[in-house]
Amino acid sequence: MESRRGNQMTEEESAARRIQRLSSHISPALTAPSSSQAPMVQTEVCSSRTKKVDVNSQALSVYMRGKHMDVQEKVYEFYNSRPDLQTPIEISKDDHRELCMRQLLGLVREAGVRPLRYVADDPEKYFAIMEAVGSVDMSLGIKLGVQYSIDKNSAVCIDFCVLYMYVYSLWGGSVINLGTKKHRDKYFDGIDNLDYTGCFAMTELHHGSNVQGLQTTATFDPITDEFVIDTPNDGAIKWWIGNAAVHGKFATVFARLILPTHDTKGVSDMGVHAFIVPIRDMKTHQTLPGVEIQDCGHKVGLNGVDNGALRFRSVRIPRDNLLNRFGDVSRDGKYTSSLPTINKRFGATLGELVGGRVGLAYASVGVLKISATIAIRYSLLRQQFGPPKQPEVSILDYQSQQHKLMPMLASTYAYHFATVYLVEKYSEMKRTHDEQLVADVHALSAGLKSYITSYTAKSLSVCREACGGHGYAAVNRFGSLRNDHDIFQTFEGDNTVLLQQVAADLLKRYKEKFQGGTLTATWSYLRESMNAYLSQPNPVTARWEGEDHLRDPKFQLDAFRYRTSRLLQSVAMRLTKHTKTLGPFGAWNRCLNHLLTLAESHIESVILAKFIEAVRKCPDPRAKAGLKLACDLYALDHIWKDIGTYRNVDYVAPNKAKAIHKLTEYLSFQVRNVAKELVDAFDLPDHVTRAPIAMQSDAYAQYTQVVGF
Amino acid sequence: MESRRGNQMTEEESAARRIQRLSSHISPALTAPSSSQAPMVQTEVCSSRTKKVDVNSQALSVYMRGKHMDVQEKVYEFYNSRPDLQTPIEISKDDHRELCMRQLLGLVREAGVRPLRYVADDPEKYFAIMEAVGSVDMSLGIKLGVQYSIDKNSAVCIDFCVLYMYVYSLWGGSVINLGTKKHRDKYFDGIDNLDYTGCFAMTELHHGSNVQGLQTTATFDPITDEFVIDTPNDGAIKWWIGNAAVHGKFATVFARLILPTHDTKGVSDMGVHAFIVPIRDMKTHQTLPGVEIQDCGHKVGLNGVDNGALRFRSVRIPRDNLLNRFGDVSRDGKYTSSLPTINKRFGATLGELVGGRVGLAYASVGVLKISATIAIRYSLLRQQFGPPKQPEVSILDYQSQQHKLMPMLASTYAYHFATVYLVEKYSEMKRTHDEQLVADVHALSAGLKSYITSYTAKSLSVCREACGGHGYAAVNRFGSLRNDHDIFQTFEGDNTVLLQQVAADLLKRYKEKFQGGTLTATWSYLRESMNAYLSQPNPVTARWEGEDHLRDPKFQLDAFRYRTSRLLQSVAMRLTKHTKTLGPFGAWNRCLNHLLTLAESHIESVILAKFIEAVRKCPDPRAKAGLKLACDLYALDHIWKDIGTYRNVDYVAPNKAKAIHKLTEYLSFQVRNVAKELVDAFDLPDHVTRAPIAMQSDAYAQYTQVVGF
Repeated sequence: MESRRGNQMTEEESAARRIQRLSSHISPALTAPSSSQAPMVQTEVCSSRTKKVDVNSQALSVYMRGKHMDVQEKVYEFYNSRPDLQTPIEISKDDHRELCMRQLLGLVREAGVRPLRYVADDPEKYFAIMEAVGSVDMSLGIKLGVQYSIDKNSAVCIDFCVLYMYVYSLWGGSVINLGTKKHRDKYFDGIDNLDYTGCFAMTELHHGSNVQGLQTTATFDPITDEFVIDTPNDGAIKWWIGNAAVHGKFATVFARLILPTHDTKGVSDMGVHAFIVPIRDMKTHQTLPGVEIQDCGHKVGLNGVDNGALRFRSVRIPRDNLLNRFGDVSRDGKYTSSLPTINKRFGATLGELVGGRVGLAYASVGVLKISATIAIRYSLLRQQFGPPKQPEVSILDYQSQQHKLMPMLASTYAYHFATVYLVEKYSEMKRTHDEQLVADVHALSAGLKSYITSYTAKSLSVCREACGGHGYAAVNRFGSLRNDHDIFQTFEGDNTVLLQQVAADLLKRYKEKFQGGTLTATWSYLRESMNAYLSQPNPVTARWEGEDHLRDPKFQLDAFRYRTSRLLQSVAMRLTKHTKTLGPFGAWNRCLNHLLTLAESHIESVILAKFIEAVRKCPDPRAKAGLKLACDLYALDHIWKDIGTYRNVDYVAPNKAKAIHKLTEYLSFQVRNVAKELVDAFDLPDHVTRAPIAMQSDAYAQYTQVVGF
Repeated sequence: MESRRGNQMTEEESAARRIQRLSSHISPALTAPSSSQAPMVQTEVCSSRTKKVDVNSQALSVYMRGKHMDVQEKVYEFYNSRPDLQTPIEISKDDHRELCMRQLLGLVREAGVRPLRYVADDPEKYFAIMEAVGSVDMSLGIKLGVQYSIDKNSAVCIDFCVLYMYVYSLWGGSVINLGTKKHRDKYFDGIDNLDYTGCFAMTELHHGSNVQGLQTTATFDPITDEFVIDTPNDGAIKWWIGNAAVHGKFATVFARLILPTHDTKGVSDMGVHAFIVPIRDMKTHQTLPGVEIQDCGHKVGLNGVDNGALRFRSVRIPRDNLLNRFGDVSRDGKYTSSLPTINKRFGATLGELVGGRVGLAYASVGVLKISATIAIRYSLLRQQFGPPKQPEVSILDYQSQQHKLMPMLASTYAYHFATVYLVEKYSEMKRTHDEQLVADVHALSAGLKSYITSYTAKSLSVCREACGGHGYAAVNRFGSLRNDHDIFQTFEGDNTVLLQQVAADLLKRYKEKFQGGTLTATWSYLRESMNAYLSQPNPVTARWEGEDHLRDPKFQLDAFRYRTSRLLQSVAMRLTKHTKTLGPFGAWNRCLNHLLTLAESHIESVILAKFIEAVRKCPDPRAKAGLKLACDLYALDHIWKDIGTYRNVDYVAPNKAKAIHKLTEYLSFQVRNVAKELVDAFDLPDHVTRAPIAMQSDAYAQYTQVVGF
């Protein structure tokens, strides 16, 4: 066929003409270059002053792999054996919910994976299961050799992971972590085997982030020894409650505990507590009297989860249903607690739920890995345009595509190590209950959840766009990944609110430092760098621009920490100033953007420190070489992105700024040269990535097969 | 009910405690401030050194409104009267496609809107119809007083607009613009009344952006006087062809024209031309012999459009089916053209299709208006947290929310005026065929389409996230708007490729300038600012930091243009340097990020110039005041975002950088104070915005009603 076009004007010649025409625009000093000027263009595009770094992706993969591969393999194998549990691309909301429930029941009752014990006792294993469930191939769909009829049913959702989280982390986790032995004895097995399906009913229509503003009430009735649950107005309707619209039998309801008093006031508001409220009949599954349930309807994504809205009208529950670990009510209506104030109790209650954030940060990195893998594998495959008389080049050879995807690949590595660290610290906290560790994990989980989920959300859009039209095909997954992941930025704490918690924590520690207090591990760098900040930037090092210096972890970490310290010092001063005229609330708001930048800067510092440590500890030199490239790109790309700040205080001189920019582009190019190896080290086989355009062999053939050719 | 909570610990007191606790973190100099320190916090949050600007939103609306309100009203009214043409939130792909076709047929055959004549003769009117179709209330869904059964069917798609574009701009536009009188005579009425449904078959599986790389062939057979259309390999399958999977009867197929020669080579490749190819039988709608059609399947969005894939096997069409405006073949197989080269002909062919880009830029601003309106109206309604002993504040009162939404609101205004200008210029071009204007419109439409659609895509995610959990409800529209709009970044020219066209054009003009050539209107600023660039920045004005100076349009425009000029000058030098070693292709690639930044910077300069002009020309002082605020915010926000560049060359001294940052935040706050008026001036009634959370009265009540309460 090709020969039919003849060779009087071949495609290559035609392309050559186009390039020549283009080239006459691009260089004013140049007119119509002869093709001999660029005989080895493609080679030169792909090589440069140093040769390609040699990366051993298998060794790298071993280094990154977690401890709990066995249980993950069990999960993968179960779903690989059950095509009936695949989610089709087109499915109605109601069918999707039923399928999701069957997927969960299959895992628990058939595969025998019983995760609840790990929620409390072995969180690392729990998160490993959650990761496998989130990325499992529920479809077996698009893979080599399967038929069209199966291809049509390729799964593209991660809903199951979230339903799993609703049932175990939130409903199960609240009972285990906020309740006492009596609750564990009564509910543990039923939750674990899914007889007791339940919901986590915190959010109300009018109050999401401001949990202390919740208005649902639980009034103690001393005559019947019961609490009476009420929705006082429509703004207090429990909203977005996962598992409520269809499947839930219980709900952990967060409500203000109202106790009778013996003075003239009549009642006393003890603040928000958690209560187990049955919402459906155990046998008939009918909604119980006084409980009204409506369906929150279609969502942007995650339509396999049945979110509902709950209104309570004088629903009576036994006194035992108060989850009483941090506060209890006696038979005669007296309140007892080991914690002195409402705020302390409230903080302890929410603190126990931090595992959800840890899980989301971890799962978000999983989504980012899948998305980056699909986009990068396709960008290596796809060719478009090229130099005269040569084949078209891979689109990943374009600097613009490297700019979109290579810092993203580096960041994926960075977040991988940061969340592995977070999970370790969380597990240690659950074991030791060390107070410093609790504070550290709380701030770190808030910061990483917020920072990483925001990054992944943006990256999913970048990946779709980077894959052009074929990225818009539903089978190639960016749409559903983005729609499903989107809400990670909001649930378990709105990202903007969580970053403020990080900033508040930093300011608290800053204050403690000046009062001689101790600093938790994650914050300890502040002691040193705050001192460094008090001195002016060194005008000599501000001009150093050698590659060895710029790739020195000490320079990179110093720069990150300097920025954080500077932001911290300056916002503390601004807050003090504005508080005098605006009060604390107004001052906080006046400095809010500054505070959010501070929080992000701190999280970036922590992530970089962990990444540098991971590079240092890597035993295999050819794995280490790949990590070092990625780490340098992560570091310098961030410094360049905020170069204005560094320039403004002359931390970096103009010549150095230019050198940083140049090296960042060069590192993107270097990372591109090992992009295949770095992506392969994520160890995501085709049956997990599933996108036809990212198949590791015959991708186009599989893609055309999917649509029926 | 409220009284049941008692007043020993009211919600307000509890909030007050939380704030006090928080405040003890935020200011190291402060310990537990007494509430008397902040008696008027909320007022102070919302007021500042000057009072709120008075904006007349009705006058502003009149100023912004286009000429063709009458035809837009006709479109609105037709759909308002036809609930059967509403798109439900949940609908299968196949049903969605049928409904979309009925929506289009209804408009054309029942409402009598016949748009094709405007494609060529009155593009401004055509775009006005397209805008109305895109934002029409096809559901009548969520509005005050309707029943739940209707609410469930609320429309959330803009597919119709795109189907409309496929049929008229692309299929119809190609026949009218690339064909001659014989084509117009034969096809015009049939296309206009939808008897002749058709497709625009340009993209192939392996070639999207690189249109000159297309491989489909159209070989002339002199014996039968026909062209034979062939798909030489699977990479050449026509892919993503809108209207092909189900409804299309014809396709404009882009293929290499192969002519027999009389020398030893046998055939000659004349480059890519467009041909009308019937693909389905006019009566039976059966696929015609030699044509194979497959369904491209589900997409991320726009599933009301039936994209298909086409493979041709020796499909014969009459010679007359060549769209022969720019090149023709005689009965004996001789090629004739008024244009001398393949590249010239190809450029002319693609040039006629620029209307699609103009339409996308225009429609994208429409989507941005809807999205910004929903997010801002909800942010005014939604309250969360607040100062002690005071009601919770609107989330739009938070600096972080202002930071997310106010520059977006300002940008929406900026893009409105820029696209209105583009449509005017495009219409003028169609009338006059002025050569300078053609060049201007081509580059401007590529730049604005690319810049605006990228911005809108990002903003849709920002809006969803800014509205928290309720932003994730499908009825509130961010999901479908994002999914449907997403591909605007890719079709009608991938944004990254289009920006390169802008950069190439700039370099061409830069070269011409040095050769004494003329500059088109949009580029004429370069003459002046390139000269300014050749001198060093003025060290005195680099320190000026007064508000009057920073809000002076001259300072703002100079800064934008200085940046563009500097990027242009430096990239031209880099290209010259690298071309010597890497050749033109390699050099272009080595500078690609730089070139993309240059293109964006230029487009930003053009947008700002148009915005400043729109402010200046606004006749109503109270409308003008609002525009001026938005314009200043647009300008300073951009300068601040690239402050590193300005600092690096000392165009801006550190004190001025700080002043710009401060003023930007202050302007965000000022714009927030007139956000309601600025949004109201878009003139989007509730039945167009449709999101329950953005209703202008009783939003929460309408929202609870939607889910069944």
